[in-house]
Amino acid sequence: MTALPSPDHILAAMQDIVGASGCLTDAADTESYVTDYRRLYRGKSPVVVLPATTEQVSAVMAWCYAHDVPVVPQGGNTSLMGGAVPDDSGTAVVINLRRMNRVLAIDTINDTMTVQAGVTLAGARAAAEESRRLFPLRIGSEGSCQIGGNLSTNAGGTAVLRYGNMRDLVLGMEVVLPDGRVFSSLRGLRKDNTGYDLKHLFVGAEGTLGIITAAVLKLMPQPRASAVAFIAVESPDAAVKLLGEARQLAGPAVTAFELISAPALDLVLEYLGDTASPLPERHDWMVLVELTSGADEEALNATLMQILESGLERGWVKDAAVAASGADAQTFWRIREEISDAQTRTGGSIKCDVSVPLSRIAEFIGNASARVLALEPATRMVIYGHMGDGNVHFNPLRPKDRSAADFLGQWYKPVSDLVDGLAHAENGSISAEHGIGVAKRDDLRQYKSQVELELMWQVKRALDPKNLLNPGRVLPGLDSPK
Amino acid sequence: MTALPSPDHILAAMQDIVGASGCLTDAADTESYVTDYRRLYRGKSPVVVLPATTEQVSAVMAWCYAHDVPVVPQGGNTSLMGGAVPDDSGTAVVINLRRMNRVLAIDTINDTMTVQAGVTLAGARAAAEESRRLFPLRIGSEGSCQIGGNLSTNAGGTAVLRYGNMRDLVLGMEVVLPDGRVFSSLRGLRKDNTGYDLKHLFVGAEGTLGIITAAVLKLMPQPRASAVAFIAVESPDAAVKLLGEARQLAGPAVTAFELISAPALDLVLEYLGDTASPLPERHDWMVLVELTSGADEEALNATLMQILESGLERGWVKDAAVAASGADAQTFWRIREEISDAQTRTGGSIKCDVSVPLSRIAEFIGNASARVLALEPATRMVIYGHMGDGNVHFNPLRPKDRSAADFLGQWYKPVSDLVDGLAHAENGSISAEHGIGVAKRDDLRQYKSQVELELMWQVKRALDPKNLLNPGRVLPGLDSPK
Repeated sequence: MTALPSPDHILAAMQDIVGASGCLTDAADTESYVTDYRRLYRGKSPVVVLPATTEQVSAVMAWCYAHDVPVVPQGGNTSLMGGAVPDDSGTAVVINLRRMNRVLAIDTINDTMTVQAGVTLAGARAAAEESRRLFPLRIGSEGSCQIGGNLSTNAGGTAVLRYGNMRDLVLGMEVVLPDGRVFSSLRGLRKDNTGYDLKHLFVGAEGTLGIITAAVLKLMPQPRASAVAFIAVESPDAAVKLLGEARQLAGPAVTAFELISAPALDLVLEYLGDTASPLPERHDWMVLVELTSGADEEALNATLMQILESGLERGWVKDAAVAASGADAQTFWRIREEISDAQTRTGGSIKCDVSVPLSRIAEFIGNASARVLALEPATRMVIYGHMGDGNVHFNPLRPKDRSAADFLGQWYKPVSDLVDGLAHAENGSISAEHGIGVAKRDDLRQYKSQVELELMWQVKRALDPKNLLNPGRVLPGLDSPK
Repeated sequence: MTALPSPDHILAAMQDIVGASGCLTDAADTESYVTDYRRLYRGKSPVVVLPATTEQVSAVMAWCYAHDVPVVPQGGNTSLMGGAVPDDSGTAVVINLRRMNRVLAIDTINDTMTVQAGVTLAGARAAAEESRRLFPLRIGSEGSCQIGGNLSTNAGGTAVLRYGNMRDLVLGMEVVLPDGRVFSSLRGLRKDNTGYDLKHLFVGAEGTLGIITAAVLKLMPQPRASAVAFIAVESPDAAVKLLGEARQLAGPAVTAFELISAPALDLVLEYLGDTASPLPERHDWMVLVELTSGADEEALNATLMQILESGLERGWVKDAAVAASGADAQTFWRIREEISDAQTRTGGSIKCDVSVPLSRIAEFIGNASARVLALEPATRMVIYGHMGDGNVHFNPLRPKDRSAADFLGQWYKPVSDLVDGLAHAENGSISAEHGIGVAKRDDLRQYKSQVELELMWQVKRALDPKNLLNPGRVLPGLDSPK
């Protein structure tokens, strides 16, 4: 075995491939690439490479593979799990795809859009809109996150109920493999049963199996009408029942169904300052419901009223505010969307992103809340998110009179483990949409079967036998690997 | 290396595991298991094993793996591609899952159903219906085909436009791996980003990577209303435009959009005998359109009329019959569904199951038809199927005055190659929903890139290093394997 190349050697090779302007090395330039979004993970890298073409990505990968140099692929670097930044060994090259940001084609008959991986989600949505189509993925970081990262993390968000996760929105992909070979299935086909559908290997693999460089995405008709309500419900159980009723009455028009607990609303209203609750009284539990359709607004509003009346009659709904205008709807949505930032600003929240079957979610919320409050009774139970998908962000927040450091120091690990354990016991997931990265990697040992972990490693080794691509992410070490 | 076990030795081992009643060896008993549905492929097997539990499947697989005995997994044995029967070497054990036919659980709040792999599609649909839910997969062989086979072939059918392929309808799976280990993710979660989503490896792998033994399937609300029309259109291009208009006006209510060419209609009407065309005159091209929704029938019919009026105005629609009753709708659907049997009975059709982007399908049909008719002008152009998915069954049928053997002998290979080549040139697929099996295995060399074939083999070898599971299916041999 030859010695690993020096940082200078690596830099020279990268400059050869992408040019000097595509290589960042100054600390000031690389800072935002080696530090994660929440500033929890800071690593080092000999060079941050900004390729402009798939051929450059391929050449970089081939060189690194030949020289045993690890590679960390990166999109908008908005991972909440430390999945997109290098570790502090300083050995891994960061490949950031932001220069590959072109929309390559839009086909409004096939309803598909071909984009490079570095297009931001907002950019993809805007391009679709220009063609009077909808690209439906909707997450808070849309201005920064990139399509490649959305695919690599199988992003979810607030419209999954209707349109599915990112996996459901992709038809074809181009991927550079760890050794530099390029796998391409950039085709806009709804049906193609010609052997293994390899693109699914790379969706949700968090950049450990290949670097996605382009994709063919599904486009949807733009909804012509939307109806939005901010609804106080009796309980999470009542919310589940209301959702069932909504789906019976409105079918696929039910686009979003987001739960919001009272402490979550309190927090965001305090943070926003200029915004009041849509409801006159304080309630323990609320849901934000959005219906959309291609039909007229009047019919959709009538359906929404039917849902609300049915919910009131059966005691599930306590009060409701229906958006009378687009501005109202935006205000309701802003309340929901700013919860995350309000938490970050407040500090001291224990972020659990769990899912359970919808039939178990009310009981799960009840049990988990009681167990957390038994540990620390003044904890603010910030619970919100995509209830329609069986997914809640269950984020116990420090009591007002405790510091973040103090609260997290005492409770982060025990409360995370408690909540994850309860979700797992309900046949749930310890990471519904945020992924694994490095933050939850070792937890997988506890929550995945040995066979499942072995299979993950079998696939990883088959595609990346040198373990050079995003090493140390997603896959925990195994005691007795198969 | 020890010698391979004798047939008697294999039989004794299988009897130990599943009992004598679960092992078939008499030619009369095994005939239907070693011969494919269309009687094109006939193989041999020392024993057809009928396990009753996942543990038995696991034990069978572990024994066969340890003794280097190939295994052919089989569901309803309705493959059109020879994918589910053994070859004639007589070395492979057939494992048929039909005794594992229990519905294990239905959750009407989570809208999921857990079934063993041997449940027939009709059985799964009936179980859903008993719980007032819809399991939406709809294919002709529903009475015989099994859920395990539907998953292994990523089955499609006539409701893909609205509900997706089988891959889109599964949330969790239990799979016995080639060496007998059991991978289980039998969970009903819409969101779970905890590492590689391994179940996607097995969907569409045609039993070459593992044997699916159980699955958690999505359930949908039962539609309350449906509206069906049999429509004469100006051309395939007009059909595509009409579909665009239908999706604008009816959104996700557009459930099926099936093309039917005049020769396809002629053939099926002759075959059925008792049924007349829904339209008074003969037209070159027709489409069968179905809208379904949870709303009332009247609103849905109004939408259908809007679509038809718009189509008439723009010259896309030449005539239309709207189903006035459920019986009418059944008649329209029967015409569509019996085309396949009518062809089988007539004999002499060249079956091409291709897809192209919707924006290219009209031109593809035009070009391919012209090329085929240039070869043999009296060929009956039986073209039909799931146009809404970009998928047509393009099945040139022998001229009336030529025998099947004669026509197929001369044209099967050149016409298949021609049609597949044209589809491929349009960025299409040579097997949209029927899969590869053995029938199209070697064609993949021509239509897949070297990297794609290498990747398929990398995955295959990672999971089945001895190449014992459904060997010789799906994956073509490579000259220079990676």
